[in-house]
Amino acid sequence: MTLQIDSRDLAFLLYELLDVDALADRPRFTGQGREVYNAVLDTARGVANEHYAPFRKDNDQHEPQLVNGVVVTTPGLKQGWDAVAESGLIASTHDESRGGMQLPHVIAGAAISFLEAANVGSASYPMLTAGAANLIAAFGTEEQQSFWLPPMLTGRWSGTMALTEPDAGSSLSDIRTHATPAPDGTYSIEGTKIWISAGDHELTENIVHLVLARITGAPEGTKGISLFIVPKRVANADGSVGGTNHVTTAGLIHKMGWRGTTSTLLNFGERGPCVGHLIGEANHGLLYMFHLMNEARIGVGRAATAMGYAAFRYSLDYARTRKQGRLPGEKDPTKPPVAIIEHADVRRMLLQQKCAAEGSLALVLACARLVDEQETAPDAAERARATLLLDVLTPIAKAWPSATCQDGISNAMQVLGGYGYAREYDVEQLYRDNRLNQIHEGTNAIQALDLLGRKVTQQQGAAYRALVERILQSVAEASAIAGLAPMADALRAATERLTAVTTSLVSAMRADPTRGLANATAYLELVSRTVFAWLWLQQATVAARALSAGASGDAAAFYQGKLQAARFYFGFELPKSVADAALLLRNDPAAYDMQDAWF
Amino acid sequence: MTLQIDSRDLAFLLYELLDVDALADRPRFTGQGREVYNAVLDTARGVANEHYAPFRKDNDQHEPQLVNGVVVTTPGLKQGWDAVAESGLIASTHDESRGGMQLPHVIAGAAISFLEAANVGSASYPMLTAGAANLIAAFGTEEQQSFWLPPMLTGRWSGTMALTEPDAGSSLSDIRTHATPAPDGTYSIEGTKIWISAGDHELTENIVHLVLARITGAPEGTKGISLFIVPKRVANADGSVGGTNHVTTAGLIHKMGWRGTTSTLLNFGERGPCVGHLIGEANHGLLYMFHLMNEARIGVGRAATAMGYAAFRYSLDYARTRKQGRLPGEKDPTKPPVAIIEHADVRRMLLQQKCAAEGSLALVLACARLVDEQETAPDAAERARATLLLDVLTPIAKAWPSATCQDGISNAMQVLGGYGYAREYDVEQLYRDNRLNQIHEGTNAIQALDLLGRKVTQQQGAAYRALVERILQSVAEASAIAGLAPMADALRAATERLTAVTTSLVSAMRADPTRGLANATAYLELVSRTVFAWLWLQQATVAARALSAGASGDAAAFYQGKLQAARFYFGFELPKSVADAALLLRNDPAAYDMQDAWF
Repeated sequence: MTLQIDSRDLAFLLYELLDVDALADRPRFTGQGREVYNAVLDTARGVANEHYAPFRKDNDQHEPQLVNGVVVTTPGLKQGWDAVAESGLIASTHDESRGGMQLPHVIAGAAISFLEAANVGSASYPMLTAGAANLIAAFGTEEQQSFWLPPMLTGRWSGTMALTEPDAGSSLSDIRTHATPAPDGTYSIEGTKIWISAGDHELTENIVHLVLARITGAPEGTKGISLFIVPKRVANADGSVGGTNHVTTAGLIHKMGWRGTTSTLLNFGERGPCVGHLIGEANHGLLYMFHLMNEARIGVGRAATAMGYAAFRYSLDYARTRKQGRLPGEKDPTKPPVAIIEHADVRRMLLQQKCAAEGSLALVLACARLVDEQETAPDAAERARATLLLDVLTPIAKAWPSATCQDGISNAMQVLGGYGYAREYDVEQLYRDNRLNQIHEGTNAIQALDLLGRKVTQQQGAAYRALVERILQSVAEASAIAGLAPMADALRAATERLTAVTTSLVSAMRADPTRGLANATAYLELVSRTVFAWLWLQQATVAARALSAGASGDAAAFYQGKLQAARFYFGFELPKSVADAALLLRNDPAAYDMQDAWF
Repeated sequence: MTLQIDSRDLAFLLYELLDVDALADRPRFTGQGREVYNAVLDTARGVANEHYAPFRKDNDQHEPQLVNGVVVTTPGLKQGWDAVAESGLIASTHDESRGGMQLPHVIAGAAISFLEAANVGSASYPMLTAGAANLIAAFGTEEQQSFWLPPMLTGRWSGTMALTEPDAGSSLSDIRTHATPAPDGTYSIEGTKIWISAGDHELTENIVHLVLARITGAPEGTKGISLFIVPKRVANADGSVGGTNHVTTAGLIHKMGWRGTTSTLLNFGERGPCVGHLIGEANHGLLYMFHLMNEARIGVGRAATAMGYAAFRYSLDYARTRKQGRLPGEKDPTKPPVAIIEHADVRRMLLQQKCAAEGSLALVLACARLVDEQETAPDAAERARATLLLDVLTPIAKAWPSATCQDGISNAMQVLGGYGYAREYDVEQLYRDNRLNQIHEGTNAIQALDLLGRKVTQQQGAAYRALVERILQSVAEASAIAGLAPMADALRAATERLTAVTTSLVSAMRADPTRGLANATAYLELVSRTVFAWLWLQQATVAARALSAGASGDAAAFYQGKLQAARFYFGFELPKSVADAALLLRNDPAAYDMQDAWF
């Protein structure tokens, strides 16, 4: 059964919704266009289906092991890595001068989603490597770039991000890893990092860790954090790899899912000198790291999307073929059973999944498209607007797909019944794998604090206003289309509600930040449902226009599906935001007032 | 850290909320009372902590294996079985004349919940055995009872329920297992059953399967199903065990969780004669089986409750000891981090868990209390009312704890962050184990159809009216208490909404059953949230009275916690039912209208 992103839907999102064709006019993308993009996507799909999907279960069943200090992984992991390295996808968005393909982020993101749908435990290695390389490309010196990027972009070396420490968790302000300046301009790194994904393995001859640490004498808190390149093995000047740089794996953590990706406890400099190379200016490390974290957060949302998508298509296939029971009106037990897709509740579960998976894909691709806009739009105002929209959408793109696609995968499991719970089938692994996405790269509660406490208030609310402006543009367009006016009206009303809530919470935060932020999670839910309604209204608009223009046959059925999913979203999902809005308008004190002793 | 039901809360539910003391007046319970009940509960807690909890992970890591046709399990499973058999808990509700303790169901249920909180994969063996024994006690002949019950109640033999078949799934009407009458009055059974929990193992010398099958010539559909006792091994007249009765295990199914309990594919009579003994009348089997299924459904809810409860207490302990971050108002990074329970969002996640776990425990114990009422209330009208309430509450008791406690366990995982996702900790297993509860004993969608399509309409809505009457009694009581009036008003309004919805759906079902039942799942959610609000209003009422009566110190803090949880429920959870009610009043057609070709 299908465990992949649907190509027709992907083409719809890229070309009909997100107008990727328009990028062809930009100097960076000269000579590109649908033909190139479709070839890239076909390559990615091929790699995913040939070298990733077959090892999904293998990853799950044969977790990496630490044997005599060496991390031993299954052969499938290496096969996937080599295939993706050879495909050039790690370097897809990089400059052609550095061996990249100079592709738009929206295409690169779509390509990677195939790998993530097929086998997320393997896909994280190239993803983290690309992220680390992107950060070096953005903030490294020319010398650093020309030294570190070639081996990373070609897959000879891999990369990680090493932020979290055992005692600090989400609180980066409390990071204690230490960097002592050496006379040669390098630093000696000492400390412990935990949950470092892809933090140790033998897939590549070296691993390039991007490490947050404090230089001797640095100020307390986030203003004293610097960023370092710290290779696992000594990187010689000629590009060859020497002995250990004393990054040692103290242990592997055994996760519920996502088992192909090592999760490591790393000691830096415990057993000997560990050399780090400062990126950019001292004490600006967190700022740089946010470049990678923002990319990684959208990446988390995309991975969640891909898994939700895989479960959706899988359970859809199942529902079409599995025959069971009869419709409630049918009392004759001699009539043959129906395919379970005939049961309205099964269609409800499939529609929830469709809304979650396709809506999430629309969101994460829209974010990637905004990165392209931010980097290549000819107009400075347009670039600035893209940055604002990205700022406000990033926490949503991280958190909401991880949550709504988990609900989706849970529905996929329910569609399969007992089979969904059995390891002999594929859904239960997706349920375990995707659950991580609500936790890593900042828990969803951290995203909620970022959204309400930072993104919504920054620049006097400019990012929030940019979002509302875009939503109201879509409302205006949809209002003009027969049949869409009720949805347009509902979204306008939801947006007004959201603005009333936002105004009220911003003034509550001014009076008392702790009290004002107490229900940030409900706020994240409210904004997320509004944003998803917006994405579905846009898709309905495109679909309605295509139908008016005379689409027929399979094409018409596809557009009808988009319209019906939008109706479902506005009927079953968006109304949930009314209760959240009311809760937030009174800033319900129940959780805030609760006392430890009362539990 | 704690992984158990809280004794103070349990005492509150049993004695302050459910008035278990009142049972002492009933002839069946002569000589019993709190002292006896607390001794039983202490025993159960001791067995759970000594012989169940230590093997929770062992069960998970060392799944039963099929080796040369024999199911091999870990030693811990046998230790748990022997301990519970010796404790007498399998026979707890049975007549003293049969070696039972003649305990109320509400006490037996509370006792079993300790085992389920400690290790559900082990607890299912005695639970299924008790259920099978209860059914034989209810419908077996005197001869059958005196033959089969003693070895089951003492734990020498165990029991199962064997309903589901590979091609029938939830549709019992399509069962194909065949029973051929033999001259000696027994039957020869042939067929295949799937997902039979505890269906094979060597914990006991025999396994007593209760099997649904069709006797030669029986009518099609549910009206042609009979119920049989089918032992794994031949049961000799003297009570000894002979050779195989040709119930063979064709395979074990490997589940995401709940791994201690074997899940089997069983062939009956494939390799030789398989003798079955008819229970009760031919073709009435489903009716009898519903006795066991209703008990099992409440049991599923109780198991979910126990797991949700374990995760709640575990994450509460963690939140009290784990220090991380500072409150949003604190900008000084040199201040020490706070315990994470200081963060409002962590308290939100703990309150959601408290509402889910303690609310679910109130519900499943209330159901068990109704079973006692049904069996022992002196007044016939009271017994009849208990039956009506049980009818309508059973699908809710099965479905809602399984769903809301899964949300709770997910929140527990989120409270622990990365540690919650790591197998080195305990929460992720609860997340995997409990997920089954939404599927087995009839998926939650099946419960929704049962609730709306059967329970609400039966006897011209008598069960529904009995529920509303009880809810309005609680509303009236709470209205008279200072501070509770707003919650009482909200519950009254919710109940009126529910009645409007119910009336509207009943007439829709009359017009077209398929259309009327299309949104049954939303109806189940609506009723469930209303019932939980009712349970929390009752708990708030008891707590408010105790506080008025001068409770102080720890006792006062406990009651304050109940009050605050009720406020949380009415602020954060009950309002979600408004959107469901609106959806149901218009009987939203989005899922119903969706077409296969549009996906």
